[in-house]
Amino acid sequence: MGQLRVGMVGYAFMGAAHSQAWRTVNHAFDLPLSARMSVVCGRDEDKVAAAAAKLGWEGHTTDWRALVERDDIDLVDICTPGDTHREIALAALAAGKHVLCEKPLANSVAEAREMAAAAAEAQANGVRAMCGFNYRRVPAVALMRQLVAAGRIGKIRHVRAVYLQDWIVDPNFPLVWRLRKDVAGSGALGDIGAHIVDLTQFVTGQSITKVSALTETFVRQRPLPTEAAGLSAAGNGSAGFGQVTVDDAALFLARLDGGAVATYEATRFATGRKNGLRVELNGELGSVAFDFERMNELEFYDATLPTTEQGFSRILVTEPEHPYLAAWWPPGHPIGYEHSFTHEMRDLIAAIAAGEDPTPSFADALQVQLVLDAVERSAAASAWVDVEAVLAPV
Amino acid sequence: MGQLRVGMVGYAFMGAAHSQAWRTVNHAFDLPLSARMSVVCGRDEDKVAAAAAKLGWEGHTTDWRALVERDDIDLVDICTPGDTHREIALAALAAGKHVLCEKPLANSVAEAREMAAAAAEAQANGVRAMCGFNYRRVPAVALMRQLVAAGRIGKIRHVRAVYLQDWIVDPNFPLVWRLRKDVAGSGALGDIGAHIVDLTQFVTGQSITKVSALTETFVRQRPLPTEAAGLSAAGNGSAGFGQVTVDDAALFLARLDGGAVATYEATRFATGRKNGLRVELNGELGSVAFDFERMNELEFYDATLPTTEQGFSRILVTEPEHPYLAAWWPPGHPIGYEHSFTHEMRDLIAAIAAGEDPTPSFADALQVQLVLDAVERSAAASAWVDVEAVLAPV
Amino acid sequence: MGQLRVGMVGYAFMGAAHSQAWRTVNHAFDLPLSARMSVVCGRDEDKVAAAAAKLGWEGHTTDWRALVERDDIDLVDICTPGDTHREIALAALAAGKHVLCEKPLANSVAEAREMAAAAAEAQANGVRAMCGFNYRRVPAVALMRQLVAAGRIGKIRHVRAVYLQDWIVDPNFPLVWRLRKDVAGSGALGDIGAHIVDLTQFVTGQSITKVSALTETFVRQRPLPTEAAGLSAAGNGSAGFGQVTVDDAALFLARLDGGAVATYEATRFATGRKNGLRVELNGELGSVAFDFERMNELEFYDATLPTTEQGFSRILVTEPEHPYLAAWWPPGHPIGYEHSFTHEMRDLIAAIAAGEDPTPSFADALQVQLVLDAVERSAAASAWVDVEAVLAPV
Amino acid sequence: MGQLRVGMVGYAFMGAAHSQAWRTVNHAFDLPLSARMSVVCGRDEDKVAAAAAKLGWEGHTTDWRALVERDDIDLVDICTPGDTHREIALAALAAGKHVLCEKPLANSVAEAREMAAAAAEAQANGVRAMCGFNYRRVPAVALMRQLVAAGRIGKIRHVRAVYLQDWIVDPNFPLVWRLRKDVAGSGALGDIGAHIVDLTQFVTGQSITKVSALTETFVRQRPLPTEAAGLSAAGNGSAGFGQVTVDDAALFLARLDGGAVATYEATRFATGRKNGLRVELNGELGSVAFDFERMNELEFYDATLPTTEQGFSRILVTEPEHPYLAAWWPPGHPIGYEHSFTHEMRDLIAAIAAGEDPTPSFADALQVQLVLDAVERSAAASAWVDVEAVLAPV
Repeated sequence: MGQLRVGMVGYAFMGAAHSQAWRTVNHAFDLPLSARMSVVCGRDEDKVAAAAAKLGWEGHTTDWRALVERDDIDLVDICTPGDTHREIALAALAAGKHVLCEKPLANSVAEAREMAAAAAEAQANGVRAMCGFNYRRVPAVALMRQLVAAGRIGKIRHVRAVYLQDWIVDPNFPLVWRLRKDVAGSGALGDIGAHIVDLTQFVTGQSITKVSALTETFVRQRPLPTEAAGLSAAGNGSAGFGQVTVDDAALFLARLDGGAVATYEATRFATGRKNGLRVELNGELGSVAFDFERMNELEFYDATLPTTEQGFSRILVTEPEHPYLAAWWPPGHPIGYEHSFTHEMRDLIAAIAAGEDPTPSFADALQVQLVLDAVERSAAASAWVDVEAVLAPV
Repeated sequence: MGQLRVGMVGYAFMGAAHSQAWRTVNHAFDLPLSARMSVVCGRDEDKVAAAAAKLGWEGHTTDWRALVERDDIDLVDICTPGDTHREIALAALAAGKHVLCEKPLANSVAEAREMAAAAAEAQANGVRAMCGFNYRRVPAVALMRQLVAAGRIGKIRHVRAVYLQDWIVDPNFPLVWRLRKDVAGSGALGDIGAHIVDLTQFVTGQSITKVSALTETFVRQRPLPTEAAGLSAAGNGSAGFGQVTVDDAALFLARLDGGAVATYEATRFATGRKNGLRVELNGELGSVAFDFERMNELEFYDATLPTTEQGFSRILVTEPEHPYLAAWWPPGHPIGYEHSFTHEMRDLIAAIAAGEDPTPSFADALQVQLVLDAVERSAAASAWVDVEAVLAPV
Repeated sequence: MGQLRVGMVGYAFMGAAHSQAWRTVNHAFDLPLSARMSVVCGRDEDKVAAAAAKLGWEGHTTDWRALVERDDIDLVDICTPGDTHREIALAALAAGKHVLCEKPLANSVAEAREMAAAAAEAQANGVRAMCGFNYRRVPAVALMRQLVAAGRIGKIRHVRAVYLQDWIVDPNFPLVWRLRKDVAGSGALGDIGAHIVDLTQFVTGQSITKVSALTETFVRQRPLPTEAAGLSAAGNGSAGFGQVTVDDAALFLARLDGGAVATYEATRFATGRKNGLRVELNGELGSVAFDFERMNELEFYDATLPTTEQGFSRILVTEPEHPYLAAWWPPGHPIGYEHSFTHEMRDLIAAIAAGEDPTPSFADALQVQLVLDAVERSAAASAWVDVEAVLAPV
Repeated sequence: MGQLRVGMVGYAFMGAAHSQAWRTVNHAFDLPLSARMSVVCGRDEDKVAAAAAKLGWEGHTTDWRALVERDDIDLVDICTPGDTHREIALAALAAGKHVLCEKPLANSVAEAREMAAAAAEAQANGVRAMCGFNYRRVPAVALMRQLVAAGRIGKIRHVRAVYLQDWIVDPNFPLVWRLRKDVAGSGALGDIGAHIVDLTQFVTGQSITKVSALTETFVRQRPLPTEAAGLSAAGNGSAGFGQVTVDDAALFLARLDGGAVATYEATRFATGRKNGLRVELNGELGSVAFDFERMNELEFYDATLPTTEQGFSRILVTEPEHPYLAAWWPPGHPIGYEHSFTHEMRDLIAAIAAGEDPTPSFADALQVQLVLDAVERSAAASAWVDVEAVLAPV
């Protein structure tokens, strides 16, 4: 069986999640290519060496430019903050490597456009590029897509999407990189708002065309961090203070091109909501609702059933007939967050082996970026704005 | 329109609930007879006078024997503790009054047999008798019955019933009448266990044939109450202490005559469960589940749907097509506990007007009493025992 | 005990709910005045006579102008559609009658201003006016207000409010009065959006200062109704068709004067959501969440508990220590929709007897009307607009 | 870092779950020993070779006797059906290998006693033995244990435990090995009932002392399987039919040595319940409730909070402060079924490295076996029976 030799850049929260997926994917699924965890890259020699050992990579390096040039690497997996995506992706694509890039694709529309163009160009040479909107691969979300696509809820009238977290409610929580515009691009908007934009467009098959937004930064100054890992961090002000330069929360109304109207909200100030990605769609014939905190469940209302029997049914999305689940455990045995990445790797490997383009493509991710950009422009102007069109790549 | 002149004996928790129902029933439903709240009876002149004023009865009396003989009373509604049911019901039936008697029908099988026999005799003269298992008239329970009767869950394999309360968890809670065998007959068993016995037999259409039970009294001595109302009471020991002579909890396994196996549990020591009457039935084709704390909902699992769409659906039982609900509010507007009594009065009035026997009859209630008796005999003997048959009334 | 003689105008859905409340309030609560259901008024002699009999009013009339002048009426209860509120309320106040007026207060800001001014003037003569935002009197909502007012959730960051119904999803549902701007003033916005505007402002103690809105009418032509009752109606086109002149859905972003940001959505196209009034508040120290379909529950997250024990707790709001509940049943026994009206009447009677102003006042209701007006102006202009201030009544 | 070289016997459902855990444990946790997936054993050469490749084992064998003797194996992991546990475990322990044995420990008390005695003997030589009751390592269950042990729910009054599945409701489902007494020992009782017996005893710290049980086999003849994997199987009768020789369901009442009373139910006929392991404990000061279908949540009722704020709180057990979770993802990101095994391996490796005995020990598992035995004896005799004591190993 052929190999897919992976070089991963970045090894923090996303790097750990991707590692678990690369390690697992060929043991869960029968695939024509076998993923090999060849090398991991980070800036600090000691830390990346430790990460390689802990996460199970054969080698490590501090030089991502060298990594993308190596002959023994087939795919570059970009798990770094958004400010570095463009440079790494362009180099990797230029070197003929397949690329998996974490979301949001970039920190600006300009960067995203450049990356989408490069991906389109590389595609002509059989090089594949994919953006890591992993929630598409949660089985309940994939089932939601199937139900909508099959017409089970009819014409969609309403989209209602929130992504609620609470990890910076405390005003003394430190100024981690996710709160700095130069590194993260935006705050809740790009980090988690991007997910619900992608997810709702994916599930409905509709695109957001215009938005009216507000963004808010509730806490504008925070202590600098003395240490940080995942979404945790410490810092008591001994290292000084800094300005929060991103949004704490982003709320917007939207219209979609299929006629639906929508509300979106992304925030890190929803006390008690830990990872509350919730989406509900109401259609003429039914509704679907999903909450990631109960990721193994999908709620489905079928308005074509007899009136006395209609209700939101809690579908436990753990049957072998459900998307991805034949690979896992018997019905009723939940899977977890990391499985969304394992499924992502599965689909990516299958696409590469088949010589097909994986989704979401860089163009898809550019379109999400255009929505995020519209949200920021709308918030700045306190006005409705149109989402720009994805131009055909040059 | 004719009247149904009601005399009610007892005016505490049940008396208040019945009063609200008598007051409401003709305003919610179109019925051939109009209930008239003629007279209420209690032992203490001042208290019963106050109750009459508060609850809306035209008159009051302290003499139930006189009440049941009055010409201007058509129906006697018995809301007193169980030790008085037999005497009042027999007198009322003998006087040719219709009788509504709160559950449990009596404090012993012997009493219940005598009452069922008297009801059967009175029936020949067009006198009606009904026992107040009000939960049958919760719309979600009535819907459960409809689904089962229509074969929607197929052959029933499992019955799982609990009735969980917690109002005597505190060992300092006083020794109210519900904790005294001479007044209440039994403890959790007769007070709340009776409801789940009746409800499950009603919904399944099956009868319990044998049981293995245990009963437990966790707190055997309590302060005597200085005041009490509903399920609330006060008492700090200043009035002395007394022995708890009933069960705090009763648990039993059962077999039903249609082949189902069952677990039952009634307790007042389930901390945090306030009125947790929960019933689940599993059948070959589906399941239904009910929790009274969410009394406007019924969960229904339809195993005949496509596999990928199966799930427990939360039916909001508030549609006009659902039992009793055309009389009330638009969909999604909950009704409450008291409505179960209003529905009970509705069905009782309709039966009387139609010259039909209301259900549950005294014979039905005797059968429940026989199950309770079997539970007590089983617990005493630490052995399986058969539920005695309801003999044909003499 | 003194009487409060009530004359009610209108006897449909709201009239039935108010009747049940007037009938019940003195039996549930000990109050210094006794409500007397004196007369009900409607346009059709036969129908209003039937309504009086069914709902329990002593008399009936077709002349509301005569009614408000009668010496034997102390309070006028306005349960008609919004286009008649102003005229009736002004006449009643001028006649020195207390007024309870259903929401929304009026169909326009101008009308509402006039009514608020009249109420302020009447107040000087001891005449009381109240607007019927009944959801404030749901015990769980009152508890939410108590928790917020006590600082239990700290500074509020987010308000998230939806009111979801689905009774006009079917494009063949008839053009009832609620879909005609001349009668109803607006659609989902005024009918149900008004409730979440009032409720969130009441619970947070904050006022909405600016909004960005969109409104949508998904189905613009419908068959004329041949009959209608409550939210139900029939009509197959045989009576012709007409234009829907109100919004089917209204969505808006808002800022509140205490610093919170908010999303609001009111729609009658949320398939499967029957009466989904849902509100969540996120504060620095905790969160509260409410869903009217489970009106006996309040979710509360206390971020000051030990980390390992934090979670949204489902408070069953049925304890005697909870607002209004000492009057009702033991813990765990749900109350229903109609109880919110009984509580409203309780507070109104208590205020009248005490010579105090009940809340929400007409001025409070005017402020809600100003928010609704801002929403409509924003939607029309596709722009953020400020909510006008409630000017001091002349 | 030292290695722990593992030889696993069996590679079906449990073998796959264990493999995923062995593969993952050292990447998630920092441990003093590194698990090495050395060899897997099965009866069929081709199938075990394929399993080794798929699951990631370095080698494979068809000879378990040779495997347990190999010098390059430190631990034998027994994932076979119950009829082979005794022989393999005894041989492995005799060969000085640590043993991890799937539950139930054996198919009879006699076997379990022999195994517990062998484990005790081996322990003197530093050899460790553990039984795989993996649900103890679900973080929410571990948290439940912590809360109970810390006295947060006080003296326990009630245990309510069910394990509900539905995979054999269809009478045409084939006669897989789990339905044959000679291989599986018992049916629902040993397969899933064993889990709730162990879990409730672990969490309460109490032991079951006596039981009254009933068992039922609803479908007594089934088609022989033509293929089977996990809990799935096919078979249409073409291979003939056979007798079901185990229980489809087992229900029992129990008393625990700390004074609690309990109900237990294990069934494979609970339509719609896929893996419904549910446990609730009610104590004097609070309650805890767990449902494996929502394995990332624990419900906790704290009766020491102010009355108006009491409620079952849904603790999302995903905080780094919760058991095992610092190794995984940020709060609100669920983990899955397989993580219970990864945690099991973590604790086992840590115990071996520390020279300590892992739990549950073979003696603990023997005690569970004695409860299962009591259940079977009780059901056979239709009588209460005492659970035999675990005798001190010779």
